[in-house]
Amino acid sequence: MKDLIDIIKTRRTIRNYKTEKVDRDILEKLMEAAKHAPTGMNNQNRRFTIIENAEIIKKFEREIESALNREDYSLFNTPVFLIISVPRDSENGLADTAVAIQNLYLAATYYGLGCCWINQLKHCYDTREIRELLTLVNIPEDEVVYGAMTIGYPKDLPESKARIEKHYYID
Amino acid sequence: MKDLIDIIKTRRTIRNYKTEKVDRDILEKLMEAAKHAPTGMNNQNRRFTIIENAEIIKKFEREIESALNREDYSLFNTPVFLIISVPRDSENGLADTAVAIQNLYLAATYYGLGCCWINQLKHCYDTREIRELLTLVNIPEDEVVYGAMTIGYPKDLPESKARIEKHYYID
Repeated sequence: MKDLIDIIKTRRTIRNYKTEKVDRDILEKLMEAAKHAPTGMNNQNRRFTIIENAEIIKKFEREIESALNREDYSLFNTPVFLIISVPRDSENGLADTAVAIQNLYLAATYYGLGCCWINQLKHCYDTREIRELLTLVNIPEDEVVYGAMTIGYPKDLPESKARIEKHYYID
Repeated sequence: MKDLIDIIKTRRTIRNYKTEKVDRDILEKLMEAAKHAPTGMNNQNRRFTIIENAEIIKKFEREIESALNREDYSLFNTPVFLIISVPRDSENGLADTAVAIQNLYLAATYYGLGCCWINQLKHCYDTREIRELLTLVNIPEDEVVYGAMTIGYPKDLPESKARIEKHYYID
């Protein structure tokens, strides 16, 4: 079994998935990991919507592309598209979403899966077409989306990027 | 050795520290974990400032208290106060800070340490008194602070809070 630091260091962003589905028992483990990430003031008001329906995933792909005026926008044929939504008035909604995503990245790595943080919905969650899709998957109008993830088995593992950030001691 | 899911589930927010210092070799491991958290567009522009000087930590405590008009504001006699700063114009600075903090939480748990996410600096990093302290620890004026952490050995481990968030499948 890999130790924590190995898992942290072998985590990658994956943009190329096998067609293989992800078993529900593994998705349940990922959800357990996500929910154990902290929330500001222990509010625990994130909603996790796990979309496995390929047709609906394709609709999100096309409407994000259109909303952001992109070309060839892709959700990488992911078998799972996870949307994290939080109350519109949530003070720490973005931070709460981010820490859950980091736990998901690590748990996915642990189970041999790969993920990609999808950052585009936060720029278009209230356009009419995207909101219709959010309603289709039962996300209420008073919730907004700061982060989403594709999750699946990686076709290949990209090389690790060199780490260049610095730290400084003040003693 | 604990497995990842155990570490994720035993992570706690710690607000009560022993006076024991944290060895530099463990702090180096924590920094390695923090830097392996992703950044938007792989920008890698976080700066980690690790303050071990008790007098400077106390100054931050008193100036945060004053800036936010609080009473009895406490950094819990932490032996280590870590500030994460990012460029002022960073598009994903808050998310980049949050994922690094989550890795730090988990790595700290792994090494028997405890942490608390300090959220107050983001409300006052540009007040004159706080900016003077940031300058004192060599954080440039063009960087801002969305998150900080206290890190030390926990005096006791609080009980885990029950998890109440929900997830839903769309298949």
